[in-house]
Amino acid sequence: MTEQSFQGLHQTPIHALPDHVGKTVLLQGWLYNLRSKGKLHFLQVRDGSGIVQAVMSKADVSEQDFEAVKGLTQESSLRVVGEVKADERAPSGVELSVRSVSVVHVAEPYPIAKKEHGPDFLLSNRHLWLRSKRQMAILRIRDEVVRAIRDFFHERGFYCVDSPMFTPSACEGTTTLFELDYFEGDKAYLTQSGQLYGEASAMALGKVYVFGPVFRAEKSKTRRHLTEFWMVEPEAAWHDLDDVMVLAEEFVAHIVSRVLANRKSELADLERDVTKLEPATRTPYPRMTYHEAVDYLHANGHADFERGDDFGAPHETALSAPYDRPVMVHHWPAEIKAFYMKRDPADPSLALGVDMICSEGYGEIIGGAQREDDVAELEQRIAEHQLPAEAFEWFLDLRRYGSVPHGGFGLGLERTLAWICGVDHLRECIPFPRMLHRIYP
Amino acid sequence: MTEQSFQGLHQTPIHALPDHVGKTVLLQGWLYNLRSKGKLHFLQVRDGSGIVQAVMSKADVSEQDFEAVKGLTQESSLRVVGEVKADERAPSGVELSVRSVSVVHVAEPYPIAKKEHGPDFLLSNRHLWLRSKRQMAILRIRDEVVRAIRDFFHERGFYCVDSPMFTPSACEGTTTLFELDYFEGDKAYLTQSGQLYGEASAMALGKVYVFGPVFRAEKSKTRRHLTEFWMVEPEAAWHDLDDVMVLAEEFVAHIVSRVLANRKSELADLERDVTKLEPATRTPYPRMTYHEAVDYLHANGHADFERGDDFGAPHETALSAPYDRPVMVHHWPAEIKAFYMKRDPADPSLALGVDMICSEGYGEIIGGAQREDDVAELEQRIAEHQLPAEAFEWFLDLRRYGSVPHGGFGLGLERTLAWICGVDHLRECIPFPRMLHRIYP
Repeated sequence: MTEQSFQGLHQTPIHALPDHVGKTVLLQGWLYNLRSKGKLHFLQVRDGSGIVQAVMSKADVSEQDFEAVKGLTQESSLRVVGEVKADERAPSGVELSVRSVSVVHVAEPYPIAKKEHGPDFLLSNRHLWLRSKRQMAILRIRDEVVRAIRDFFHERGFYCVDSPMFTPSACEGTTTLFELDYFEGDKAYLTQSGQLYGEASAMALGKVYVFGPVFRAEKSKTRRHLTEFWMVEPEAAWHDLDDVMVLAEEFVAHIVSRVLANRKSELADLERDVTKLEPATRTPYPRMTYHEAVDYLHANGHADFERGDDFGAPHETALSAPYDRPVMVHHWPAEIKAFYMKRDPADPSLALGVDMICSEGYGEIIGGAQREDDVAELEQRIAEHQLPAEAFEWFLDLRRYGSVPHGGFGLGLERTLAWICGVDHLRECIPFPRMLHRIYP
Repeated sequence: MTEQSFQGLHQTPIHALPDHVGKTVLLQGWLYNLRSKGKLHFLQVRDGSGIVQAVMSKADVSEQDFEAVKGLTQESSLRVVGEVKADERAPSGVELSVRSVSVVHVAEPYPIAKKEHGPDFLLSNRHLWLRSKRQMAILRIRDEVVRAIRDFFHERGFYCVDSPMFTPSACEGTTTLFELDYFEGDKAYLTQSGQLYGEASAMALGKVYVFGPVFRAEKSKTRRHLTEFWMVEPEAAWHDLDDVMVLAEEFVAHIVSRVLANRKSELADLERDVTKLEPATRTPYPRMTYHEAVDYLHANGHADFERGDDFGAPHETALSAPYDRPVMVHHWPAEIKAFYMKRDPADPSLALGVDMICSEGYGEIIGGAQREDDVAELEQRIAEHQLPAEAFEWFLDLRRYGSVPHGGFGLGLERTLAWICGVDHLRECIPFPRMLHRIYP
């Protein structure tokens, strides 16, 4: 007999219960909460797909079943057979009228109580913390966003190409690289971006996206830093800066639309104000050049901002404040952007780069650019940035054999999730966060 | 003007040309091959989505365009405007009658000629090798398999959960672990499997899958070894060994069906005999216990096989030979399997594990099991295997707080691709392979 069935019934996921009103079903899950009142037990049962209230009346069940539930600990696992009843008061619109319960395992007293815990305690118990309503909601939204990302690119003819984790060289400097011994004294570095490999793949497949973990050995201990996180990086031949910006805004609008359409109850669990997200489903997004952005800052409370500098968090918040959706800042001073960005032919002091800054102070989620496609220009940049030329020979080859205008961007998954979920700290946006001093569990 | 348009036309991908017969379209891509004959140029143009023949007649184009193509080097990039014509002789059913050509970049003489190259040369030029018809076919099939994997699990209510790359301890021994300095002298190890994290997540979300890169510091230099590769690992509460086997065979059948349905022309480019794959679309797959498998080996040319040992490649080939689809071997001697596998209650010398072995000698693609769900049993195994107990405290917690029967498996993406594509060496099944002595490009 399969574990998914019991008493001749096959397991029904809780999220599907509204389709089974009037039917007798089997739930398998964990006790999320228990209230008992005389001859009634009210069990909140969770199974991963949702939470439902199961009402157990002493008159409807065996004496033994009724006693087994009395005082049952949170997170005990159990099988519940009962009838699905419509109930307008329930968030899901249904509750279960229990016929029988089989306790599978009585949990030890559960360490995560309803009271507030400090972040260190919760992070050390991340394997259990994931079972809270809030964390499950974030995980399910993450799953939705991951699928929305892949669907978006597939529907537009982009192929998924996985870039390597072990790289021989740094894409943008070496100070935040994790280094390791590869074999026999060879050094390898963990990737910070799959972009260069995305460019090579785009010259083969036309339009590609890289989507995987990337690493940053940053000694910062802020709510915006993780040492490993996931990044999606589309790269497309025949795309200039304008094409990249259109792709970026359509992409973010698609992701937000999917979450709003399919994860309503999770957003409600997170008490997210969805009216703040809805405008981001509509394109175009506002655009301004870097210099226009600086003018705005100078006129709006940031008179001391030095033109030519990169924006900090307060500047990003100020720039996005007038808008109800993300804003794109383009045409950046070349000196503060990466070596591989193409210069503006009309003003070579500018790089054809773009950053997308979220509303509500959630900061930058996208960095993108049109890439330098001229081999001589690129060789010069590599020399100017004092990068090891031989490590970039293969990258230069892409400009030697049928160079084409091309561009792309990178979107940080956890930052995007933080914004969509309305969560302050990135540590809640990845199942097992890795930070300075944190690699357990 | 966007880079995706030219002469008022928007770029049409080559794979979509059969829908545009009689229309004038813009192609943007690279010259894959050129034959010239008097007043005709025959250009094979590739754009990543496909390859098409573009026929350029001197009478139809400007003198300048005709001259520009003469002697044009392979991989030069170009824009071609022409009329789509039905042509039964063409593999795609269409060819292009050229009206104008604009050469974007004249490629330097291309290093990858039609002649045979050694693997070292090709691997050092992997960024260019990807542009060959064979490699593009494998990449597109990889993209299809990745999507088939994610669609399969989503349709069955599994959530995607990303496990960490940095781990504090080894899942199965430390000899093949990559170690690195994390911060301030702390050691971290690169993950070999996301399974333990998948188990924790399954206790939160019910059914999950982990899909990401994993690492093995193996000093083997064989066609079956990569130091980083991708693995997908579903894990489900309330699944016993039988449920795991049903899930595994339905999963593999789904993947093969999707590739056969959507990647016909790529399989043709690879000259794959699809009649060898078709039986794998049908379930159930044959099953045998480990001891039945040993009996078979003893009776069929492997009399010297030591009962209790793990199978080597020749044994796997022999076991799969009688079948037209993958075969599953289950109920293994516990000593040769991982500590976390549940013992068979009927015979504790056996572990409730399963391996799936591919047909045609492609070997094992899946390893799975029902997991030990009793905390005392698991503590004993960890001690027997001399694993550091404190590193597994969180894993033991999963058996302290609502333990349930559960199981899952891992499928190696590149091994599965090697089988489906009929490719001997894993190095062709990942965009940028990493092996002993190979992390460039």
